[in-house]
Amino acid sequence: MTNTATPITRLDAQTADFEQQLQHLLAWEAVSDHQVAATVDEILSRVKKEGDAAVLAYSNKFDQLGATSIADLVVPQARLQQALESISAEQRQALETAANRVRRYHEHQKQDSWQYTEADGTVLGQQVTPMERVGLYVPGGKASYPSSVLMNALPAKVAGVDEVVMVVPTPKGEINEMVFAAAAIAEVDTVITIGGAQAVAALAYGTETVPKVDKIVGPGNIFVATAKRAVFGNVAIDMIAGPSEILVVCDGKTDPDWIAMDLFSQAEHDEQAQSILVCPDADFIEQVQASIDKLLPTLERETIARTSLENRAALIKVADMDQAVAVINRIAPEHLELSVEDPQALLPKIRHAGAIFMGRYTAEALGDYCAGPNHVLPTSGTARFSSPLGVYDFQKRSSIIMCSAQGASELGKTASVLARGESLEAHARSAEYRIKK
Amino acid sequence: MTNTATPITRLDAQTADFEQQLQHLLAWEAVSDHQVAATVDEILSRVKKEGDAAVLAYSNKFDQLGATSIADLVVPQARLQQALESISAEQRQALETAANRVRRYHEHQKQDSWQYTEADGTVLGQQVTPMERVGLYVPGGKASYPSSVLMNALPAKVAGVDEVVMVVPTPKGEINEMVFAAAAIAEVDTVITIGGAQAVAALAYGTETVPKVDKIVGPGNIFVATAKRAVFGNVAIDMIAGPSEILVVCDGKTDPDWIAMDLFSQAEHDEQAQSILVCPDADFIEQVQASIDKLLPTLERETIARTSLENRAALIKVADMDQAVAVINRIAPEHLELSVEDPQALLPKIRHAGAIFMGRYTAEALGDYCAGPNHVLPTSGTARFSSPLGVYDFQKRSSIIMCSAQGASELGKTASVLARGESLEAHARSAEYRIKK
Repeated sequence: MTNTATPITRLDAQTADFEQQLQHLLAWEAVSDHQVAATVDEILSRVKKEGDAAVLAYSNKFDQLGATSIADLVVPQARLQQALESISAEQRQALETAANRVRRYHEHQKQDSWQYTEADGTVLGQQVTPMERVGLYVPGGKASYPSSVLMNALPAKVAGVDEVVMVVPTPKGEINEMVFAAAAIAEVDTVITIGGAQAVAALAYGTETVPKVDKIVGPGNIFVATAKRAVFGNVAIDMIAGPSEILVVCDGKTDPDWIAMDLFSQAEHDEQAQSILVCPDADFIEQVQASIDKLLPTLERETIARTSLENRAALIKVADMDQAVAVINRIAPEHLELSVEDPQALLPKIRHAGAIFMGRYTAEALGDYCAGPNHVLPTSGTARFSSPLGVYDFQKRSSIIMCSAQGASELGKTASVLARGESLEAHARSAEYRIKK
Repeated sequence: MTNTATPITRLDAQTADFEQQLQHLLAWEAVSDHQVAATVDEILSRVKKEGDAAVLAYSNKFDQLGATSIADLVVPQARLQQALESISAEQRQALETAANRVRRYHEHQKQDSWQYTEADGTVLGQQVTPMERVGLYVPGGKASYPSSVLMNALPAKVAGVDEVVMVVPTPKGEINEMVFAAAAIAEVDTVITIGGAQAVAALAYGTETVPKVDKIVGPGNIFVATAKRAVFGNVAIDMIAGPSEILVVCDGKTDPDWIAMDLFSQAEHDEQAQSILVCPDADFIEQVQASIDKLLPTLERETIARTSLENRAALIKVADMDQAVAVINRIAPEHLELSVEDPQALLPKIRHAGAIFMGRYTAEALGDYCAGPNHVLPTSGTARFSSPLGVYDFQKRSSIIMCSAQGASELGKTASVLARGESLEAHARSAEYRIKK
């Protein structure tokens, strides 16, 4: 290493204090700010009580709009189509290609209803139905991504949701044409240019203009995240996302420039993003370091990427691929790149990861935009218990039980014993009515 | 009606103010108590910091135990087996029958991994894996139900979860042998006799003795519910349950005593439980009222059931079955009983319900205990966006993307355009490396 080397944390999984160092590296906690919570509480209760009037007041204040009614902030479908026609043919083609691939992949996630009949004629099953109406939060400003519109709206559409309502703030009235174009392609039903906690509140409670939804998905700042947590239960929400992260596992035989750029593609997101390389080959780690040092100054977003790499990245040396797998499962990464010769051999050993990018050709960026799977993924180790956003997030199930006379008679005997054991006598008697004399 | 009639709300779906009255009837909001939240916050942060010592101090205080260590509160498997042998043969048989049926039904919910290969050799798919460790909260005291142990633990077991950790408070040291027996039958791996917010904290953060889990499920009081909401994100949780409810739709041709008892089987749970009858036959509604008046005084839990019926029940007259369906979908009931001649004809019209009990023989009580489907169901209209507890609650998915060289080259072009449109240059360059020259 020379003096110009980018200072990136180096860890060795074979050292005794590795787990401790790793824990330190991964440490990240959602800011839970009492001041923010109090502000959000006030916004929620005002919107609940005053409806449109409160949403309008907050939108004019926070987004510096001069709107006179929320109805004025509802975007006509013609305006979305206009945006679609305003972008370049190349961009439109790219959005449509991405949308088609995302739609096709998500079709595979659709769950069907099922029933089975037992010997005595009793039918058991599960009926799967889509939600009626869902809300999609799209951030405004610099983090306003058309790809996120596709990734959040299309699974809901594939699920069969009747109405997708998208909210997107337009600070100072600034509109992102690509976001509107993506909404047109995804056939979003309603777009309203509101944002912040007031938009979450409007979707959760409903106002004169904003329809109440069953679930709210999509990323947002701390006010949005705090509002989503507060309305959870009243409506469903997706997970509250932490900073984005990638774990690249490489056998040392990929072009180190490729690996460096893959790490950058995470680091450029924001200063809190985390890029980690795991590799059994010490020499290759040095080659990647050299590629980083060489390529980092060439990035448009060099400053952000450099901060992210210096504060949160790590190059981790492991003994072998088995130890690499152990590190993967310990971290439960949002994005896992297996830049190795035979990724299929590793796959069955991987227990926790949001998305797995297999082989040297599968850059995370391909999955972020257009491979097909969703780019909304569990962060901060929550892949231990969460899944990518999917069609299943917009479907729900109802249990089906239809007892035959004979079936009810048999089940009634068991239910009666258990109900009486729990001192729930009416349960027991209700079951006993169905026992054949 | 005579003077001795139980006063139960009567509604007619054909009146102009029906929606308003229905809204009033259904109104229920989880108590969100600032004092409780502050207490829970303190418990959470002490347990996070002090581990076992804090859990021990709170357990001794709130449950009036005289324990000297949390290790002493870990129940040996032999003690669970002893409980199984201590209950009556009839009870054991009933628990085992129920467990077998619940297990069999839930096997149908298991989701499998899938992959498909595109023309250019690119592979896309989804890998499904079980969570490693989940926590099951079982309330102590009067609401300690062995059936809940089966309903919460068995889906996790069927999913393939490595370790199910059950916590159950034993106020004043009082043990429910049926609950321990059910834990033995469900093959719960670890049982610890702690409860309250301190048990939720221990499961969420882990202590010296209590292992950190990935998800916490199971009902509890307001302290438990508040703690679950607070740790959400750190671990997964199931929905926060409101009072239990049943909606019985009857065509007027079921024995009115059966219908009355079915309504009671909900009303006897607690004073906040809600029982609603929907029927197009005014005479039949009077017959059910008469059955209620006749049978209510014969109930062991008459006082609770009477309070529930007088405060929260309703007998709703509808014009016809189409209007009944509209009321069902408006309410999105936890339990829906279709006590009608041809329930299969109604099924496709039902969009929102936790569990659907079809036909005159299918009392809710049969499903509560042993039909097979889960009895942990979405309450308070949350069936609009939630499902019964199931195997899917203990599995999670990882997206799989493996691009061929050709596939990566094609996708790279689309990804590059979209990434540059979002000003994410490193994403674009990472994709462009994979484009064939």
